[in-house]
Amino acid sequence: MRAAWVEDGEVRVRDDVAMPAPTAGEAAIAVRLAGLCGTDLELVRGYAAFSGVPGHEFVGTVIDAPGAMQWVGRRVVGEINVRCGECRECRAGRGNHCGKRRVLGIRRLSGALAERVILPVENLHAVPDGVSDEAAVFAEPLAAALAIQAQVGIGAGDRVLIVGAGRLGQLIARSLQSTGCELHVVTRHARPRELLAACGIAGIAEDDVEYASYDVTIEASGAESGLALARWALRPRGTLVLKSTFAGETSVNLSTIVVDEITVVGSRCGPFAPALRALANGRVDVTSLISARHRLADGLRGFEAAGRRDTLKVLLEP
Amino acid sequence: MRAAWVEDGEVRVRDDVAMPAPTAGEAAIAVRLAGLCGTDLELVRGYAAFSGVPGHEFVGTVIDAPGAMQWVGRRVVGEINVRCGECRECRAGRGNHCGKRRVLGIRRLSGALAERVILPVENLHAVPDGVSDEAAVFAEPLAAALAIQAQVGIGAGDRVLIVGAGRLGQLIARSLQSTGCELHVVTRHARPRELLAACGIAGIAEDDVEYASYDVTIEASGAESGLALARWALRPRGTLVLKSTFAGETSVNLSTIVVDEITVVGSRCGPFAPALRALANGRVDVTSLISARHRLADGLRGFEAAGRRDTLKVLLEP
Repeated sequence: MRAAWVEDGEVRVRDDVAMPAPTAGEAAIAVRLAGLCGTDLELVRGYAAFSGVPGHEFVGTVIDAPGAMQWVGRRVVGEINVRCGECRECRAGRGNHCGKRRVLGIRRLSGALAERVILPVENLHAVPDGVSDEAAVFAEPLAAALAIQAQVGIGAGDRVLIVGAGRLGQLIARSLQSTGCELHVVTRHARPRELLAACGIAGIAEDDVEYASYDVTIEASGAESGLALARWALRPRGTLVLKSTFAGETSVNLSTIVVDEITVVGSRCGPFAPALRALANGRVDVTSLISARHRLADGLRGFEAAGRRDTLKVLLEP
Repeated sequence: MRAAWVEDGEVRVRDDVAMPAPTAGEAAIAVRLAGLCGTDLELVRGYAAFSGVPGHEFVGTVIDAPGAMQWVGRRVVGEINVRCGECRECRAGRGNHCGKRRVLGIRRLSGALAERVILPVENLHAVPDGVSDEAAVFAEPLAAALAIQAQVGIGAGDRVLIVGAGRLGQLIARSLQSTGCELHVVTRHARPRELLAACGIAGIAEDDVEYASYDVTIEASGAESGLALARWALRPRGTLVLKSTFAGETSVNLSTIVVDEITVVGSRCGPFAPALRALANGRVDVTSLISARHRLADGLRGFEAAGRRDTLKVLLEP
């Protein structure tokens, strides 16, 4: 089958990748549409030492599911962590943190930038009829954005700053709107600010961020300067959410975290069900974030586009 | 009056320190007993660029309180942060984080290792009759230990690791006993382990700490190796409490905090009322932590003793 392929620091499109077949408990899914994420670009640069088919954002149609044929023909999205089911974390209901987990297109599991993808049936969520493919493909990153609300109580009384208005920052901002919080998003560029403004969200410049004045700050830029700004803007006893990963070690002044009694919350994957609900009821607009759409055969153009500063979401269609 | 005095990297006892006098809203307190804390030792080494009278753990008797004479004659302990009362943090009820705060014996406020100390009346708490001076002098550090429970929900279902069994680690361990949690305290030395065992608390060696197996870990050693151990022992989605301050910058792998969705909570000062209740009902034993007691005139011997590894709490009596 045709699929994107990451190996030795580069990505290419192959037509000779073996078609995967499901075993009991698994489903074979014909990919309808897949999305590119910052993590996919990092995989090409060597993150997670991954080689194989990348891609973890998709919507597809189940074409086979041995022992669970009721899924066949359904349009689905899928959670990306495949747990062992037996370890302490799995037994405690934290399968996303299973030490033996495979992660779709990231860790020991062939990804969704392909004609077909395999996932356990327990990872699947049916897509409501009213949700388009172009919206459903955002289920995974929107779930990641919604993870913040599952971890940190954010309400109408809170003043919240998001640092970064890229793919992730935009989704987080949109997902937080319904909380009624006072929301500011730091961005250096005109286009992300326009997109925020179209949703009624205030984009502000770095220089307009007020010191120690936010109850919650969210680092979504992936840059150390963004982290420094998020820390600087946070009030004592506030909560700093880390949503981006940083390569290597970062120098942190831990004493100020103690003295100011800051809470730092690391946040990764999130709940699919509320993401699909938000897409179904139109509470969160996602399709305005689509910058480009390419055929998988032209996947390299998609990767090139996704790497540009002014690009938000790039979709690939098998 | 007689007082300890920190200046230019050393501490001495002076007999010529000006006797402070209270203004309206303040109380003059004759110190009955004061305690030495790790912070006092750090002040001598230059922490907080403080010079003057150190000391922030005390019990004393109010001898003057202009406009609030009902306090005169009462035995009291005192909260150490003196707020401005007007800034954003003060108005939000977070006076301990007032940007203009003075802190007893630490920041622009003469401390309690003296015959007399001045504090605003609003900072005072009357000591219940049944609480001895030797127990009451622990109100401040016990409140700091109890801050953890005010910030992080810890219950009988939790497995908790404290790294460090010094003054602070011992108090935290004792304060957590009533939660019913499964509690382990890492210690390298026999004496702290005996003290813990006398309270029915399990002291364990570093080598016996199990990887990623604790719901909550508490760094109370002040050492980077202790921080590394607390991080290593924490399960995904667990909470790491930072209770010690670290000088300068510390190198941290932030990606693992995101991937494992760790929460890091900085914790400093705590609530006096529950500390006094715990002392009054005998729920937390503190007096077994007293290693030595000296006259203030012999204060240097107290500082020397407090600096030794095997010493826990040193008390000074004016």
